[in-house]
Amino acid sequence: MTVFTVAADRPLVLVGPPGAGKSRVAPEVGRRFGRPVVETDERVESKAKRPIHGIIPELGESRFRAMEAEALAEALRAGEGAVVATGGGAVCDPKAWELLRASGALTALLQAPLDVMAARVFPVRSTRPHLADARTEEELLGRLSHLMAEREPWYGRCDIEIDATGRPEQVASRVASAASSALASSVPVRLGERSYVFWLSDNLGELGERLARRISPVGAALRCALIADETVARHHGDAAESSLRSAGFEVLKVTFPPGERSKSLASASEIIDRLLGAGAYRPQRGSVVVALGGGVTGDLAGFVASTLFRGCPLVQVPTTLLAMIDASVGGKTAVNHPEGKNLVGAFHQPVLVQASLDTLKTLDERAYRAGFGEVVKYGLLDPEWRLLDLVERDSDALLAREPAALRRVIRRCVEMKAAVVEKDPEEREGPRKALNLGHTFGQALEAATGYERWLHGEAVGLGLIAAARVGAALGLAPKSLEQRVCSVLGRLGLPVDVSLLMHESVLRLLGVDKKVAGDAVEFVVPVAGGGTKMASLPVFELQSHLLSSCR
Amino acid sequence: MTVFTVAADRPLVLVGPPGAGKSRVAPEVGRRFGRPVVETDERVESKAKRPIHGIIPELGESRFRAMEAEALAEALRAGEGAVVATGGGAVCDPKAWELLRASGALTALLQAPLDVMAARVFPVRSTRPHLADARTEEELLGRLSHLMAEREPWYGRCDIEIDATGRPEQVASRVASAASSALASSVPVRLGERSYVFWLSDNLGELGERLARRISPVGAALRCALIADETVARHHGDAAESSLRSAGFEVLKVTFPPGERSKSLASASEIIDRLLGAGAYRPQRGSVVVALGGGVTGDLAGFVASTLFRGCPLVQVPTTLLAMIDASVGGKTAVNHPEGKNLVGAFHQPVLVQASLDTLKTLDERAYRAGFGEVVKYGLLDPEWRLLDLVERDSDALLAREPAALRRVIRRCVEMKAAVVEKDPEEREGPRKALNLGHTFGQALEAATGYERWLHGEAVGLGLIAAARVGAALGLAPKSLEQRVCSVLGRLGLPVDVSLLMHESVLRLLGVDKKVAGDAVEFVVPVAGGGTKMASLPVFELQSHLLSSCR
Repeated sequence: MTVFTVAADRPLVLVGPPGAGKSRVAPEVGRRFGRPVVETDERVESKAKRPIHGIIPELGESRFRAMEAEALAEALRAGEGAVVATGGGAVCDPKAWELLRASGALTALLQAPLDVMAARVFPVRSTRPHLADARTEEELLGRLSHLMAEREPWYGRCDIEIDATGRPEQVASRVASAASSALASSVPVRLGERSYVFWLSDNLGELGERLARRISPVGAALRCALIADETVARHHGDAAESSLRSAGFEVLKVTFPPGERSKSLASASEIIDRLLGAGAYRPQRGSVVVALGGGVTGDLAGFVASTLFRGCPLVQVPTTLLAMIDASVGGKTAVNHPEGKNLVGAFHQPVLVQASLDTLKTLDERAYRAGFGEVVKYGLLDPEWRLLDLVERDSDALLAREPAALRRVIRRCVEMKAAVVEKDPEEREGPRKALNLGHTFGQALEAATGYERWLHGEAVGLGLIAAARVGAALGLAPKSLEQRVCSVLGRLGLPVDVSLLMHESVLRLLGVDKKVAGDAVEFVVPVAGGGTKMASLPVFELQSHLLSSCR
Repeated sequence: MTVFTVAADRPLVLVGPPGAGKSRVAPEVGRRFGRPVVETDERVESKAKRPIHGIIPELGESRFRAMEAEALAEALRAGEGAVVATGGGAVCDPKAWELLRASGALTALLQAPLDVMAARVFPVRSTRPHLADARTEEELLGRLSHLMAEREPWYGRCDIEIDATGRPEQVASRVASAASSALASSVPVRLGERSYVFWLSDNLGELGERLARRISPVGAALRCALIADETVARHHGDAAESSLRSAGFEVLKVTFPPGERSKSLASASEIIDRLLGAGAYRPQRGSVVVALGGGVTGDLAGFVASTLFRGCPLVQVPTTLLAMIDASVGGKTAVNHPEGKNLVGAFHQPVLVQASLDTLKTLDERAYRAGFGEVVKYGLLDPEWRLLDLVERDSDALLAREPAALRRVIRRCVEMKAAVVEKDPEEREGPRKALNLGHTFGQALEAATGYERWLHGEAVGLGLIAAARVGAALGLAPKSLEQRVCSVLGRLGLPVDVSLLMHESVLRLLGVDKKVAGDAVEFVVPVAGGGTKMASLPVFELQSHLLSSCR
């Protein structure tokens, strides 16, 4: 038997109607993943000191549901990525979904054809709430059908759906295989009631269904404002729109001219005008804003979502490598101001991030490669520089945009970003500052050259070389690190000439950088063994470290 | 002995250095307020199973501080407005202040001249952490002085300061009297880490100090952007500015033309331009935005604060009755859009609301009276219509702007607003909708008349009459309620002719109101005994209820 791996702390929760076989399948799944198994019904029985079917008649439905909720909360808290078999009604409640989302659980809906489930339940119907008095299998089938219809808005939220016909071992194999692939394609960002999941798919076709699972469009179709720049809209607009429409959303597409210049309060205002002037399909409170594109679009459309109707649900659909691994997660939205970049904005966490590898195919070579500036940054943040090793090993595959290599790298970057964001969602304390590695010089270089000469990732790459050199000069990183960073960036086609940073205009701009405290520059340096330290250095000292060659 | 009253669930926390007499004073204060007394040191001793002075040497300082934090959390949770005597170092920690704020505690700093405290502690120094080895009273005095300096940033956050010289009973009397008056002048809004307090003072002079207590300006002076319309700036700008300056803030004043037209994305953008272009004094991340004015200013400056640097701390200084009792609390910020009011905005809770009765003196009569539209709304929301009784009883005093009458009414309205906001901070569920009582028709009337004919409070007043009539027609409110509402509004100088609402343009506008669901209007109606119910009514039915006279 294959042993599957599951991220240690993500619970795997089996959901489904009576007769789907959750409690028989759960131990089999637990065995395959090598994880503990919790059955919420058992916990409820031990709390209530009576069998499940005795609880509702004797203690009432609301007591039963409260005990079920408590049992679910405990099972999710168990914290070892338990496989949890839930009672059929345990997830039919908004609070339960808040718990599930906050725990980062992967939810699997088990269901078989109604007659199969009815046949399974009929002999044991006396032990099931609400089904005990069905006299014939046909009557039971009717009940189950009604139950399924009633619970559809809740069951429909599950991450994956599993055909539950056949023997428990067969079903468990299906669960294990689907869950493994879903776990490998997703990273939860656990922020309490603002939790969400980053999903990585092969193509944009999954967007609509994934969003429908997150925000069930109830009754009338929910409205979506799909915001993209003209270039991205040309390449991917139709795919995104049709995916959303087939999942039941009404879509209003709004495009804007590509480029950093569109990241302004004026553009945001224009987009808002177009959304609010859009007649019958104009968004309302509760409508969703979908940001389809790179960092500019995520920031701009995110800002629109944060201010429209005092906050609309936002979906980030990053289409560049850079946006996938960095900007799409974390809730930063912003527009630029003549006085500086990103000075106007808000923290507004998305409800879903849906990245698709196929969108990377249309990126031009330079823009694609620039993304590796941030990838190498995460490589330096990763304990033992494991991600750096991986990038070095896979550099050819990455340059060839091979999906398997990209998946590994993107997933690891997002895991790290998520971990930082979970610790410091609004950048109040230290943790999130580590992500500025390479950015002090990188942003100064971008500013000094009017944001036209260098792409962000290229500038960050150069900033990383500078940071490695300063780290070595301060005795925090090995002297060989600079050469290693240069070499991997070079192999990925990024500029590596650190003397580009030594222009007076760049150094002068460090003085107006927002990371300044007093006269010293707060500088993030990489340290041996992975990770960073904050160093507070006077500008002249930074400069002299940088001038001294330490190779 | 006078028995003072204290809001049942606000803890009163005594803070101060060793020798301030906290544990001797606490029981006396508890007796005066009729409240239980908790001493955190005692709880720590029982947890640690050893005396306080034995804990640090034996278990280490960090274990001691952790136990202290736990004891403080328990004392605050006790939930009966306990009088809590804290260990001297228990509040010297950001987490402790988060707890204190989230609990709505009133904090009182007890301190006496250093020599007085040293003389008190010397004989028992062996029982105090860090002081046991002081050989002379002078040495102890030196230690205490150092301790006080070190703890100043923490002690300086306390709401009130009490002279702790004299016998415990004398000190307790001072605490009881200052605490009673502070409790009567403030309402906590408990929103976890976003908690804040509404303070009501006699004049604006308290603003600076109150803000300094909330956000201690450390090291370099903290920057304040003081935003007001030209009229309010003329009346109160200097008072606010000099109060802020004398508390150590650097102030940058920005004004804009008065009136609803300034509540636009264009004005917000202009204010942002002026703040960011302001040279050495321009706000930075962490700078405070102070909104000095009525509802327009609170919404506009609040919106600026919510977007500048992805969110700046915001202080609401409401200068109108309407803004004091309603808009200043709850975190709604917004600008208007040609397609509708308040369509663009964000939820951004203030860190402090500081209202001053003296600002009401400069309001013109009509604007002042309009505030009572919202006051009467709260009157209908209050259980048993107690606030309505109070307003009826005090109407002459209120018209004469008498401080005592105003204090009672403002305080009660804010308490009710705070209770609703605490339950539903971002208007996701039902509770906050109750605050829309009177607003469905009120806002339609304002819109139908281009926001020029009627002030908001006047329109709401008319909406309340309509709501009372519909409530009676649905059998939810007594038939006499409409007459009662008319009569109190009339006495307060507000329009009461409900036929003003019967224009076609008003009724048509109900169809585009944001509270619409399907074809029916979601309508808030007052119910007998106080409070509201939601009724979903087709527009024509609303109209026919309104046409039928039910007097």
